[in-house]
Amino acid sequence: MSLVTLLADPGRFGGAELRVEGEPYKHLFRARRLAVGDRVRVVDGEGRARWSEVSRVDRASAVLALGEPAADNEPPFRLILLVPTLRPERASWLVEKATEVGAVAIRFLHTERAPRDFGAGAAARLRRVAAAAVEQCHRSRLPEVTGPHDWRDLLDLAAGAETLWVLDTAATAGWGEIQASGALLVGPEGGWSDRERGELGASGWRAVGLGPRVLRAETAAVVGAAMVLLRE
Amino acid sequence: MSLVTLLADPGRFGGAELRVEGEPYKHLFRARRLAVGDRVRVVDGEGRARWSEVSRVDRASAVLALGEPAADNEPPFRLILLVPTLRPERASWLVEKATEVGAVAIRFLHTERAPRDFGAGAAARLRRVAAAAVEQCHRSRLPEVTGPHDWRDLLDLAAGAETLWVLDTAATAGWGEIQASGALLVGPEGGWSDRERGELGASGWRAVGLGPRVLRAETAAVVGAAMVLLRE
Repeated sequence: MSLVTLLADPGRFGGAELRVEGEPYKHLFRARRLAVGDRVRVVDGEGRARWSEVSRVDRASAVLALGEPAADNEPPFRLILLVPTLRPERASWLVEKATEVGAVAIRFLHTERAPRDFGAGAAARLRRVAAAAVEQCHRSRLPEVTGPHDWRDLLDLAAGAETLWVLDTAATAGWGEIQASGALLVGPEGGWSDRERGELGASGWRAVGLGPRVLRAETAAVVGAAMVLLRE
Repeated sequence: MSLVTLLADPGRFGGAELRVEGEPYKHLFRARRLAVGDRVRVVDGEGRARWSEVSRVDRASAVLALGEPAADNEPPFRLILLVPTLRPERASWLVEKATEVGAVAIRFLHTERAPRDFGAGAAARLRRVAAAAVEQCHRSRLPEVTGPHDWRDLLDLAAGAETLWVLDTAATAGWGEIQASGALLVGPEGGWSDRERGELGASGWRAVGLGPRVLRAETAAVVGAAMVLLRE
């Protein structure tokens, strides 16, 4: 049987048993047909993972016996992704892929050349996309998904990041040394306005490029995250 | 006005003028409202690009005066992507993103653990996705999109590639030296079967990894292509 990861509430992660009900019960015990004795990797969304074994399956719930720690499958580098507001389908794709690649936060930001309307309930919907991707790719940390944020809050949104990168087709510098944490800011497909580019240069963002082609915003975000998180 | 790239038939690319009709006419002269004097970058899908200027706009066609060569915006490395058959939406995403990142060919392949049914007309539909992405990201080469192919044809599909990489979560080696061309083989989310892994090892494919998380096939393809094509 292939590996199964279940994202559980952090408050219920520390004990000896975990009761599974509702949608997770239906997914694991109806759709995937887990049975007593099967192993499940349980993660708390905050970077911890444990092995468990199915100890009981009832008609509407099941019990997992929690055991030893499991590999967290998290990258060593903490990357915050700051991305422009996008249409729903492209935002979903970005969140799913950036979660797989290993970002710790994905924050949507208003910029001059991106759509203003991000859609009511978008962030809540995107958090569910991230949660599904955590289980699918076997991470243990659930990335924060927030926004849309105001441009003026940009530096607060990158708080804690040692390096600030901004993708810019006009960039001439490389990624430089990669430390323990960073923020990667991705612009809209229309590019940065002169005012935005001026503010970014003045506040210490390092412009990096991804070649001469104009990537869509969600492509640039996922590929840029991979350049930081998956480099050897 | 922002840059516009038009993908034209290679046979009509060498002359002094190019007539634009049908869908490209509607897109450029109705939706985007180009006018006499505007510049258009024209590419032939085979790696050549020229600047042009709109010289005449009629009610159902327009004429571009073709001029000096333009930047091709192609990566120096030729990468063939070999990917498993996927559901339509994920296949579309893969083709769009791999075109932006710069692959020269995207070939879908039957593997033991991927869906057999790729859908009638899928390759033709995906070629239109690639053509739209070429114009959107301002490439000049239209990637070949082919398949679904038989597993036995694997080495023929990678013909001409100096390096053969296969993504494998069990890999311990890195990408190694990057020369002028290569093929990157991506497995299905269920992983390689023992038989497939044995054949790949015996025929010289170098196993490389993208971290401990299990990436979806289309994520692995796009991110793997970026690791080769966009590394500094």
